[in-house]
Amino acid sequence: MITIAIDAMGGDIGPPVTVPAALEVLAKYPHLHLIMVGDLALLQKALQSHSYDSTRLSLQHATQQVQMDELPSQALRTKKDSSMRVAINLVKEGKAEACVSAGNTGALMVTARFVLKTLPGIDRPAIISTFPTKNPNKNVRMLDLGANVDSSAEHLVQFAVMGSVLASAVDNIANPKIFLLNIGEEDIKGNEQVKQTAQLLSHAKSINYAGYIEGDAIHEGEADVVVCDGFVGNVALKTMEGVATFIRFLMKEAFMRNVGTKLIGLLVKPVLTTFIKRIDPARYNGATFIGLQGTVVKSHGGANTIAFARAIEEAMIGVEKKVPERIRHHVEQLLKSSLPPQDEPSL
Amino acid sequence: MITIAIDAMGGDIGPPVTVPAALEVLAKYPHLHLIMVGDLALLQKALQSHSYDSTRLSLQHATQQVQMDELPSQALRTKKDSSMRVAINLVKEGKAEACVSAGNTGALMVTARFVLKTLPGIDRPAIISTFPTKNPNKNVRMLDLGANVDSSAEHLVQFAVMGSVLASAVDNIANPKIFLLNIGEEDIKGNEQVKQTAQLLSHAKSINYAGYIEGDAIHEGEADVVVCDGFVGNVALKTMEGVATFIRFLMKEAFMRNVGTKLIGLLVKPVLTTFIKRIDPARYNGATFIGLQGTVVKSHGGANTIAFARAIEEAMIGVEKKVPERIRHHVEQLLKSSLPPQDEPSL
Repeated sequence: MITIAIDAMGGDIGPPVTVPAALEVLAKYPHLHLIMVGDLALLQKALQSHSYDSTRLSLQHATQQVQMDELPSQALRTKKDSSMRVAINLVKEGKAEACVSAGNTGALMVTARFVLKTLPGIDRPAIISTFPTKNPNKNVRMLDLGANVDSSAEHLVQFAVMGSVLASAVDNIANPKIFLLNIGEEDIKGNEQVKQTAQLLSHAKSINYAGYIEGDAIHEGEADVVVCDGFVGNVALKTMEGVATFIRFLMKEAFMRNVGTKLIGLLVKPVLTTFIKRIDPARYNGATFIGLQGTVVKSHGGANTIAFARAIEEAMIGVEKKVPERIRHHVEQLLKSSLPPQDEPSL
Repeated sequence: MITIAIDAMGGDIGPPVTVPAALEVLAKYPHLHLIMVGDLALLQKALQSHSYDSTRLSLQHATQQVQMDELPSQALRTKKDSSMRVAINLVKEGKAEACVSAGNTGALMVTARFVLKTLPGIDRPAIISTFPTKNPNKNVRMLDLGANVDSSAEHLVQFAVMGSVLASAVDNIANPKIFLLNIGEEDIKGNEQVKQTAQLLSHAKSINYAGYIEGDAIHEGEADVVVCDGFVGNVALKTMEGVATFIRFLMKEAFMRNVGTKLIGLLVKPVLTTFIKRIDPARYNGATFIGLQGTVVKSHGGANTIAFARAIEEAMIGVEKKVPERIRHHVEQLLKSSLPPQDEPSL
């Protein structure tokens, strides 16, 4: 039995999305137990028209709610009985093994880090998410997507270890290929941060470090994990979203031009179903806050039921595959392998 | 009369692209004079089947050529008679007012910087290019796209000044809105570099600084200029290219599935003509190396004739609008406006 705490009030929509999503995964996985945290009256109302296995769905009252635009530090200080905080506390207290929230990202990160703490050997948690590639059977994971800025080379190495563990444990990849995001100009190849990280990674025996990757190769299907600083990763993530939105906007404009183009648009829709499904953000929803003593998954704030259900599944798999325990183990290995070899002469 | 030196051998294709492109712009602009630099025999052969105004097209022999994968430092040291180096020398000697090359980006940057030097008050040249937005009448300029990494806040302010000058002079925008690329999480909003730059920009009276922008808003049409470090800018640029390529790949896959989808594809093509034109890289070809004592424009290495002609036009406009002179003037203004005001009490 796996127990997951859900911040039922989080996200742009709240219970109208979180409750049906919870019921969906509950029906799908008989070994799952969910604790919905939030306004009890609201949750009971949202549940009353549904039938479900009440032995596997608990409700936990929380009097407060973190707003989407609230300052994380303020939420941490003043919202000690928010649905988000209570859900994280349940993980801390061992009453749940993971927590899922579609709420304020910054508040979730700050609160999760404060309550759960990082794993030994990990200085900073990171945000890791999944992106589609040209290979329909292969996705790519990328981190950090915005938890940290001004990361040191040592932090980036920790991200590489965590990404490697997640890719092998959750995505079942035997020896995940880890790439470091960089730029291509020869003489100025990389900033100091990236150059130092590359050197450290090439000595880390427990990581299958495969070298540099440029932004235009993320979706090619070669990399299993792409490692970068949170500032760079967040810019890349948002830029991806921006280009996709822009192309969607231009295509819609083209097909909406007149009656003729609208008719052609109707013909095109079924052709593009698979294509649209391949890049549907709902399929990739659920960014893991990796490196904490506990599993915390952040859903997109505007997630629909399918997307939020996907985020719960991501948390469930993280627990099943014991991601935090594995990271702890691999960090120990890395620290050992990073020691200078004893038998080589020093220069 | 404007004279532009062309590195005729540069790029993946060389004279078969550079020569017809040169003839095209020459026919279009009667006040233009071009100096084609490269292997004289090859150039004469490429020209022999064409008719053109020979008083406005000169040839300049160069015995060497910089390879696309050559180390920039090596090109600078060993290729002193390359078509690229000779074309840049012509600008230095005052025989041409600008130089255009589709060759090795790193070598072009290193050589241009070494030969031409930066403008007074500018520590580092930057690469600036143009991107489409949702507004068909408005493009956005972004810099630095990869000339510099580990830029200081002062460097980013210089980039802002240069971007502002280019947008007002070349794009005829009265008071260009300058945004600083950043990430959105509240408590960790920006790295140290961005925070310091924002503070400096808010005091720079000669710049219309409009605040932070996230990667997903670059194409929205609000910003005239987006400023960022060259590492971040190059990652964003390549990520844009990667997403566009990935979407094109998936769409092609969808329409090539069977005879029926191929037929629908034929119907769709004319509908998407405007859309494809709007995001056609050829239309946006020509990245300016800004901040040098002279105008240098880099064409994409794989540019076709239309795209290379566009890069020559970009150089021509830069010269006509006196971009380097204006930058020199604005940097002086900025240095004055950055001095602490005399009449305010100090704290």
